[in-house]
Amino acid sequence: MHPRVVPEVTAVDMTEAECWEHLARLDFGRLAVTDHGAPAIYPVGYSVVPGGILISARGGSRLLSVLLSGDVAFEADARTDVEGWSVLLKGVAQRIDRTSLKAVGGVAAHADGDAHVLVLITPTELTGRVLHRG
Amino acid sequence: MHPRVVPEVTAVDMTEAECWEHLARLDFGRLAVTDHGAPAIYPVGYSVVPGGILISARGGSRLLSVLLSGDVAFEADARTDVEGWSVLLKGVAQRIDRTSLKAVGGVAAHADGDAHVLVLITPTELTGRVLHRG
Repeated sequence: MHPRVVPEVTAVDMTEAECWEHLARLDFGRLAVTDHGAPAIYPVGYSVVPGGILISARGGSRLLSVLLSGDVAFEADARTDVEGWSVLLKGVAQRIDRTSLKAVGGVAAHADGDAHVLVLITPTELTGRVLHRG
Repeated sequence: MHPRVVPEVTAVDMTEAECWEHLARLDFGRLAVTDHGAPAIYPVGYSVVPGGILISARGGSRLLSVLLSGDVAFEADARTDVEGWSVLLKGVAQRIDRTSLKAVGGVAAHADGDAHVLVLITPTELTGRVLHRG
């Protein structure tokens, strides 16, 4: 039996501007929160807005309550056979209404209706890496 | 300006067998851990082995120490324009050596050498969803 061999990978750190530029290419990522002391991951749709990323969560949902009560981490990535990238954002979440969002120049990509709440995640830390497979 | 409209999404829960079957299709996911009380996400390569998923982490790394000291969550997903799926695994991590791995019928896909430690993540909870966009 031949175990697959994982090729050597070289990593290059992104600048903050590159992190934003990469985040803006996608609309789907993953949120990590701490729920009763244990980590949990939620796949989420998102959009980049001035000052952060915007997601929407159903009002009254577990995700919304956990999200607003502590630190959050967010990750987005993309890959091809020879290259991949990943951006990691740590930050805090807050509810934002459509009027405030417009005031900072953002447009809500989410048309989820009244049952959903817009949440702005503002980064305290933003890092990204491009990985090349040798 | 026309905000993008996110189409209605319907979700179907996976059985546990379907979760494993979907996990086995990929080799790249994301780990969430709690580091000093705050959530953190790490993109990781993985393989499915009997009883769990296998990742490797560099000996002495932050990831390895955080991973072995508490609960972990793991997520893998894939998407097309009309369909997507996501599997979420909550569990515990433990070091495993190549001999023990072989004893349970697993093969280490990772050939990262001596600097890396194999870590088996055993699920306490495994859920998956297939999403269809209407």
